[in-house]
Amino acid sequence: MNALAVTRVLALLVFATGAAMLLPMLISLGYGEAEWKWFGASLLVSCGVGSLVAWLCRGRPELRNRDGFLIVTLGWLFVGLTGAMPFWLSGQIPVFTDAVFESVSGFTTTGASILPDVEVLGRGMALWRCMIQWLGGMGIVVLSVAILPILGVGGMQLFQAEAPGPSPDRLTPRIKETARLLWGVYCLISAVEFLALMLCGMGWFDALAHSFTTMATGGFSTKAASIGHYQSPAIEYVVIFFMFAAGINFSLHYSAMRGRLRSYFRDSEFKVYITVISLAMLVVATTNLILPGVDTEEQLRASLFQVISIVTTTGFATADYELWAPAAVFVLIMLMFIGACAGSTGGGMKNVRLLLLTRHSINELRKMIHPQAVFPVRFNHRAVAPDILTNILGFVLLLLLTTIAATFVMTLLGLDLLTAFGAVAATINNIGPGIGGVGPTDHFGHIPAVGKWVLVFCMLLGRLELFTVLVLLTPDFWRRT
Amino acid sequence: MNALAVTRVLALLVFATGAAMLLPMLISLGYGEAEWKWFGASLLVSCGVGSLVAWLCRGRPELRNRDGFLIVTLGWLFVGLTGAMPFWLSGQIPVFTDAVFESVSGFTTTGASILPDVEVLGRGMALWRCMIQWLGGMGIVVLSVAILPILGVGGMQLFQAEAPGPSPDRLTPRIKETARLLWGVYCLISAVEFLALMLCGMGWFDALAHSFTTMATGGFSTKAASIGHYQSPAIEYVVIFFMFAAGINFSLHYSAMRGRLRSYFRDSEFKVYITVISLAMLVVATTNLILPGVDTEEQLRASLFQVISIVTTTGFATADYELWAPAAVFVLIMLMFIGACAGSTGGGMKNVRLLLLTRHSINELRKMIHPQAVFPVRFNHRAVAPDILTNILGFVLLLLLTTIAATFVMTLLGLDLLTAFGAVAATINNIGPGIGGVGPTDHFGHIPAVGKWVLVFCMLLGRLELFTVLVLLTPDFWRRT
Repeated sequence: MNALAVTRVLALLVFATGAAMLLPMLISLGYGEAEWKWFGASLLVSCGVGSLVAWLCRGRPELRNRDGFLIVTLGWLFVGLTGAMPFWLSGQIPVFTDAVFESVSGFTTTGASILPDVEVLGRGMALWRCMIQWLGGMGIVVLSVAILPILGVGGMQLFQAEAPGPSPDRLTPRIKETARLLWGVYCLISAVEFLALMLCGMGWFDALAHSFTTMATGGFSTKAASIGHYQSPAIEYVVIFFMFAAGINFSLHYSAMRGRLRSYFRDSEFKVYITVISLAMLVVATTNLILPGVDTEEQLRASLFQVISIVTTTGFATADYELWAPAAVFVLIMLMFIGACAGSTGGGMKNVRLLLLTRHSINELRKMIHPQAVFPVRFNHRAVAPDILTNILGFVLLLLLTTIAATFVMTLLGLDLLTAFGAVAATINNIGPGIGGVGPTDHFGHIPAVGKWVLVFCMLLGRLELFTVLVLLTPDFWRRT
Repeated sequence: MNALAVTRVLALLVFATGAAMLLPMLISLGYGEAEWKWFGASLLVSCGVGSLVAWLCRGRPELRNRDGFLIVTLGWLFVGLTGAMPFWLSGQIPVFTDAVFESVSGFTTTGASILPDVEVLGRGMALWRCMIQWLGGMGIVVLSVAILPILGVGGMQLFQAEAPGPSPDRLTPRIKETARLLWGVYCLISAVEFLALMLCGMGWFDALAHSFTTMATGGFSTKAASIGHYQSPAIEYVVIFFMFAAGINFSLHYSAMRGRLRSYFRDSEFKVYITVISLAMLVVATTNLILPGVDTEEQLRASLFQVISIVTTTGFATADYELWAPAAVFVLIMLMFIGACAGSTGGGMKNVRLLLLTRHSINELRKMIHPQAVFPVRFNHRAVAPDILTNILGFVLLLLLTTIAATFVMTLLGLDLLTAFGAVAATINNIGPGIGGVGPTDHFGHIPAVGKWVLVFCMLLGRLELFTVLVLLTPDFWRRT
């Protein structure tokens, strides 16, 4: 463990979060809202403490893999606490637990909210809420493309060679260069969405807020009725397109922008992503179209919107999907766990893992008949190392076990089974709205405080691919080597 | 494939099932019920066809592993169809689908019933219904101790050396000898339970029926209120004890009867079984005791009864557990999937798999910190071969995938989410009553016919440890080698 270097990185993250408050502060000031002072105060505290601690821990010692786990987990936690400051200090979210819940939900790009009505927030707060999702999304892109493959978390070492940037053996320069390239892609697509939403008639403020939360697959909105508020097919199609894009591995976008458009269709995971969406659409749209007296285009659009919103773990809503046929609701719940592609801002199990698990299961069946034969599991035409495969199997088991354990704790707090499961599924997969008492027309405000902290833990667990967080709970981690 | 030999074994199984109808026929005759004729007719048909086909396929060709999969799956299916004959022909269960559902539910020791009121059945039919569970249990004991380890299904090869009888390399004599020894144990424990129930004041008929269904962890009863009917703490404690015993690996009972009582406590799976039951009791009893105005002994007994009934996948009821606290219901649902021990008559995932999965998950976490180290997963102080481990992981994934797929089909038929999931969980884990519309106070009669066939498939899948059935659906199986 390199405590000094770890502390320095954490301090810099807190500093950066504080610095980012400049934009909502200016917006608040521009609209003549009193909250600009609380943004100013939070900014001063975070940047002050951040720079002081970073200066105290100066020097450039080498970071090791083990430090990486600590930086990632504590980094997300500290950034979440820093981001909660304006909400709490300003009194717009007066309860500390709620402010942290909302902020962590933002930085993990979950999108679960404790607010019964988001429209009572001032403009500055509303934008900050969406902006932290976008900042969280930046973190996720780099985490999932550059850091997790190096740390060897949950089979993501599969992608070790595929990140853009210099050769994989130069750790710090590589992460920096990859971050620079991917952030370029991320900002560019966000800007295009911003313009597209403006062209469809959305005001600049809402367009900015929603392009922030679409690209992060976050799902916070400035409107209580989410995207459904605008009643605009054009806006919905634009959001569908960009949610879909945000659910794809950003390395593929980078390749595409460098002219290699075929990269998408050479990627097995992208094909699974398309297949999952198509099959889900088939079920959801079919069962919805049976409903009497509905407009076909409208129903197809509502179905597509919800399928994409949930599989990418964004969590925007245009309809109350809990009223749909049980088969459609069941498919949506499954999509929550499948999630988007690795290397995207989306959460969930990820399509690559679904693919490898399915192939593994089929191989095990074939082994029954040919016990001596060796059937390698392939991904993108290469055999997957057995180590990586068992790591992925371990990941899925842990996802299952933690979902079960967290649901159990929620039932102990008195929540009914469906709400308990829905709340955990929606947070551990970083979706936002769930099912039961935390469905698309509800909020998380009524969950007991202990339950909110459990869900905060679930958001971090899911976002950081479980292992990164859980490894800190093992005695081995803290033992000197 | 050795079609002649396979057909011969299947014919002999049909013959044996027919021969077993002699007992309920005599009971029907003794009580002066008209159904004795239908038993007689079914007996004649099954024994006639069975012996004729067996004679046509005479000769003693060697059976191979691949034939084993076919015999096991088709065997259970044919025996189920044969056992349905008396129900259907007599008109006591007039719909063919229902009769097959009831019979397969019996032979797979599931205990799910389509009967709204079991007490309208004649004595002969009521006994036959319980007797097929006992016969199914005989099949399971041999299947799980002697056959699955040889076929290498779902990691059960772990137990290859532990079955009683001659050395493992002599296939047919070994299975025969193991069957003879285990059936001795099975009959002996059943007889003891029969006597114990009689001593507690149960009539000989009910005592016979309930010892049949306890030892099979089947859960059919001659009373609509199941064991709750008798309102007798003594009877409940006896049933608790024998359900508990039936959920243990029968190889351990065999060892114990040969004087090695310590075998139980040397077995890691037995320890997990005890731990799971204790933890579940802690939650279920605690949440139940909070209820106002209840008698402590009564609540503890009700909790213990339900925990044991569900973890052993028996499915007897003394209370409507759906009215219990959400945390207690959640624990019971988890117990459904955990199930009993390998080599018992119980179903579910089995405790040995839970143990190995948990150990594997912890090892994967430790590997994050020590990427170069090798951490073997141990069972009963021996390292488990990586092949067996991935096989077990594959098994759990398949259990998850088939549960999801079957639940999805049930929702397509219009069942609500909870009932769809409850019906699949209760059949694929061979429990009987589930949750939602198929809870302990409901029955399966209202499920649409297609749904009943899906559940019949689930019962067979679960009972035969998934692989045995699914392997028949792969093209590889039918290819000539």
